[in-house]
Amino acid sequence: MTGPAPAPPSAPTEHPLEAIVGRTIDREGARELSSLLPVLVQDLTDIDWRLQEVLGSKYSQLTEAARYACSTGGKRIRPLLMAATFRALGQESTAPIRSLCAASQLIHTATLVHDDVIDHAGTRRGQPSMPRAFGMPLSIVTGDYLFVRAFQLAAEYSRSVILRSAEACADLVEGEVLQDTAQFDLSRGREHYFRVIERKTAALIASALGSVAEIAGATPAIIEDAIAYGRSLGIAFQIRDDLLDIHGDPDLLGKPLYSDLREGNPTLLTLEAYRHLGGRHQAEFERLFQMRRKRTRHLLRLKELIDSTDAAAEVAAEARRWSDRAIDSLGRFPGGMYRTFLEWLARGAADRPY
Amino acid sequence: MTGPAPAPPSAPTEHPLEAIVGRTIDREGARELSSLLPVLVQDLTDIDWRLQEVLGSKYSQLTEAARYACSTGGKRIRPLLMAATFRALGQESTAPIRSLCAASQLIHTATLVHDDVIDHAGTRRGQPSMPRAFGMPLSIVTGDYLFVRAFQLAAEYSRSVILRSAEACADLVEGEVLQDTAQFDLSRGREHYFRVIERKTAALIASALGSVAEIAGATPAIIEDAIAYGRSLGIAFQIRDDLLDIHGDPDLLGKPLYSDLREGNPTLLTLEAYRHLGGRHQAEFERLFQMRRKRTRHLLRLKELIDSTDAAAEVAAEARRWSDRAIDSLGRFPGGMYRTFLEWLARGAADRPY
Repeated sequence: MTGPAPAPPSAPTEHPLEAIVGRTIDREGARELSSLLPVLVQDLTDIDWRLQEVLGSKYSQLTEAARYACSTGGKRIRPLLMAATFRALGQESTAPIRSLCAASQLIHTATLVHDDVIDHAGTRRGQPSMPRAFGMPLSIVTGDYLFVRAFQLAAEYSRSVILRSAEACADLVEGEVLQDTAQFDLSRGREHYFRVIERKTAALIASALGSVAEIAGATPAIIEDAIAYGRSLGIAFQIRDDLLDIHGDPDLLGKPLYSDLREGNPTLLTLEAYRHLGGRHQAEFERLFQMRRKRTRHLLRLKELIDSTDAAAEVAAEARRWSDRAIDSLGRFPGGMYRTFLEWLARGAADRPY
Repeated sequence: MTGPAPAPPSAPTEHPLEAIVGRTIDREGARELSSLLPVLVQDLTDIDWRLQEVLGSKYSQLTEAARYACSTGGKRIRPLLMAATFRALGQESTAPIRSLCAASQLIHTATLVHDDVIDHAGTRRGQPSMPRAFGMPLSIVTGDYLFVRAFQLAAEYSRSVILRSAEACADLVEGEVLQDTAQFDLSRGREHYFRVIERKTAALIASALGSVAEIAGATPAIIEDAIAYGRSLGIAFQIRDDLLDIHGDPDLLGKPLYSDLREGNPTLLTLEAYRHLGGRHQAEFERLFQMRRKRTRHLLRLKELIDSTDAAAEVAAEARRWSDRAIDSLGRFPGGMYRTFLEWLARGAADRPY
């Protein structure tokens, strides 16, 4: 237990839609979006209420810690995708998937909390990280609590939904372990990178959208399409994350740049840059990348070496290819505004500013 | 990640039955027990197989860590209670509850792993603790993995079983938080102590036995009895644990003595001793108990002060009262060998050597 608990964070009021899709839509699109926006924002609010409700514990300390964790838990892209998919499949109300949306948000947040303990992270989304704010012991326990509440929520659904969620969680955990096996190691290459992000990022989104399609009463083929869409979008999203770690705006991101470089986490960007660099520079890149305690000048030199190659442009193109694949997966979805919105989201995943 | 992984532990071959009930049964009882023993040992083996099966991951490192955690996970008292309860309710095979038994063992183990990270424990059941053997990051992730696999197993059952398990897990986590709020604090007294152990220890056993009774097709009244039995036995078990931390045999326990004293964890024993001690000694006891870093002489002085009171005898009597309550809860269970065995287990919980 640390000293006095921090002041509770202000309730999340911003919605990330405009930031995510704002760059990629034209004027016609913006007009269409403006009619969806209030509906989807209301969906996110409803999901947030369900989340807040389920986090209540008899012990205020645990409730406070759990709510803090969720308030710093990110852009709520998962519930947004789930709500839009459900509506794209013809549903008029997202009430039936509210608990599932809250569950996947909780699972995602639980892993972020435990990640921050493991990485000794100081900041998350511009606020003190959980371990910084509440100490290591309560952070571990709060992560467990979020997992437990997530499974309690998932228990409202059919066995296949529960099993799909549990399998995605196992993938997620396996992804973390797999990622750690290649820390500071540039030799494992692209194949290993994709194996990690499919498990660490894509599996949970894919499984959530598959379950949403199932709850919407979709055919097995459409359920598979929803899974494929979620998987490709998740990969695009993660590749974009890797780029933002080097070229993003730290104020928008809410965390310092270069964390992947600092932690020796081989991203597609570092792997591609490494592959492109010539002999002497390649050796220098590897030596710097493998340093356990990098100073700012090491990080800046790594960035300089990356920027001396075409890696960033190639990686951005790769992210867009996954976006395209995600969009292609929607081919059998019913046409309409929400399907268009899912296409925007896929484009936004590969092109978002944060 | 730490250096080379430790050698895999030898498979668990000992069964704890004789140690637990050995002290409390007479010759007639011993003869009866000898006929149950092979059946229950086979049940535990079957449950262990289910457990090993579900722990398999595509990543050998995670499988290895998860199996190591389970091999140091304790006396397997939970699956034993579950198998005996199921058989006491007339079932001929424990196959229908095997996954549930494995799930509760996994949940219990997950919390032990995270506890050992939080407490920086070096030893568990005579072997290096998980964080010692595999490092902090992999220990946190492995704990998460055990939780996830447990919920995957629980998904085989009805919604009420899943929800009962999830609720018990939430209790467990809340118990941890509640316990931490009274660390180094002797003023919170018995009421707080019982609130903690009901959640931290009794809830999971009670919920598991309730679900076992439900799966056996028992009436609501019998399900309630099974829950009450598990709850009282769990409390007796925990009180005995507190005594063993001071008066047990560290070789049998597989961990050093005085860990509750060292960590400032107020047990029923320390609370009662504190209450009984006179003014000067009471002040000394409190001062020593509140020290964050106790030396051996401080621990031995605390034990000496405890032993100068009647606290140990009173606490032992309290444990036996909870055993008696557990046995009383079995009044409506069908008579027979397995019910007798459950009575022995309840006595053993309050009187076991480790």
